[in-house]
Amino acid sequence: MPKFEVCLSPDLIHLYDLKGKNAIIVDVLRATSCMVTAMAHGIAEIIPVSTIDECKALQNKGLPAAAERDGSKVDGFDLDNSPFSYMAENLKNKTIAVTTTNGTQALVKSLSAETVLVGAFLNIGAVSKFIIDSNRDTVVVCAGWKGNFNLEDTLFAGALAEKVINHFDIGQDSAIAALNMFESNKNDLLAFVNKSQHVKRLANLHIHKDIAFCLTFDLYNSLPIYKTDKLINFTK
Amino acid sequence: MPKFEVCLSPDLIHLYDLKGKNAIIVDVLRATSCMVTAMAHGIAEIIPVSTIDECKALQNKGLPAAAERDGSKVDGFDLDNSPFSYMAENLKNKTIAVTTTNGTQALVKSLSAETVLVGAFLNIGAVSKFIIDSNRDTVVVCAGWKGNFNLEDTLFAGALAEKVINHFDIGQDSAIAALNMFESNKNDLLAFVNKSQHVKRLANLHIHKDIAFCLTFDLYNSLPIYKTDKLINFTK
Repeated sequence: MPKFEVCLSPDLIHLYDLKGKNAIIVDVLRATSCMVTAMAHGIAEIIPVSTIDECKALQNKGLPAAAERDGSKVDGFDLDNSPFSYMAENLKNKTIAVTTTNGTQALVKSLSAETVLVGAFLNIGAVSKFIIDSNRDTVVVCAGWKGNFNLEDTLFAGALAEKVINHFDIGQDSAIAALNMFESNKNDLLAFVNKSQHVKRLANLHIHKDIAFCLTFDLYNSLPIYKTDKLINFTK
Repeated sequence: MPKFEVCLSPDLIHLYDLKGKNAIIVDVLRATSCMVTAMAHGIAEIIPVSTIDECKALQNKGLPAAAERDGSKVDGFDLDNSPFSYMAENLKNKTIAVTTTNGTQALVKSLSAETVLVGAFLNIGAVSKFIIDSNRDTVVVCAGWKGNFNLEDTLFAGALAEKVINHFDIGQDSAIAALNMFESNKNDLLAFVNKSQHVKRLANLHIHKDIAFCLTFDLYNSLPIYKTDKLINFTK
């Protein structure tokens, strides 16, 4: 059976050899939830970049651009980090540029993988189907918060582990821990996530609606996948 | 209330500012369990070093020396990494030198802390009493395995969090996760630890007796604490 592993922070990515594997990037609150929502609502391509400057350069070329730092929209950009912003009719079939505090950084660090996928609770079914079909070793790369472990991304890793447990070897300690944490909290995921530092950090940004939305399972079938500098929708 | 935080791997230690804080080094299987046992059985001082060469140099000066790599004793040294080896009558009042794969590395990385303590299930009561009395911000530094997260050290962090929950702010995501993992497994800690990579790795070394011993709560009152290049027993 292929291995299912969980990298709890981008600052631990040096411990993983991603060659030949699937890397699933997850930043539940809210970068990867936004990307999945965007593609479900018809956005054609997403260009993820590390820096504000790169994002600004793409915006100057005419792309709608989203830049988030520390949970807030950076001044001068078109889109914020709420999934509801990616449902707009005028974004359909567009290519957009995105940079975020954690999610896009984790993605850029994982490009040595055979396949780089974007995961969220919103598309967990599509992600699990893809990795089961691929029959490849898989690493969930939790975006965390500025290098720190976080609850919500690890819960996603645990939820995915539960979904694929009959198809993968889940013997790595961090995968076991993620699975255990998900199983012991799945009956009230929102209550557990509400304890997290991220939710406390963002409490004054009024994102409770976003948080509940981002914890919805299988709302979308979209699956952003990285191909030559862009994310495209695998399930389109 | 002071903060109680958990650093899940020495490879994440750069995210923590330990100045003015307690750092509790934990390597349940088996370095810190050995140190706590050693001091409970009358060993006077432990000199932790990073490398085999440093350890050999101290052995050449006449100190009993313990060197472990990958779970096994390094050839030419006096002591292995089993707590039962540290109960010998002829070690009483001696100073010993120790290097291990993970535990001593984590300790050496944490020396900027105000106080560096050695924790294990075996002395968890002494550790909790010390940090409550200190009323200082505290970081549990999990030794892990070669930079990787592990179950047993995180379980210790969770057990300690539960003990001090009325005296510390346990709001950091990794501390919440450790507490949650301990609480959902405390009724059968051994069964959960038996799933771990470390136990599987060491299965052929016949250390099941060691593992059960290392999961014993509060067997000893000893508390190794770092003072000028050595660990001494705070509660002696």
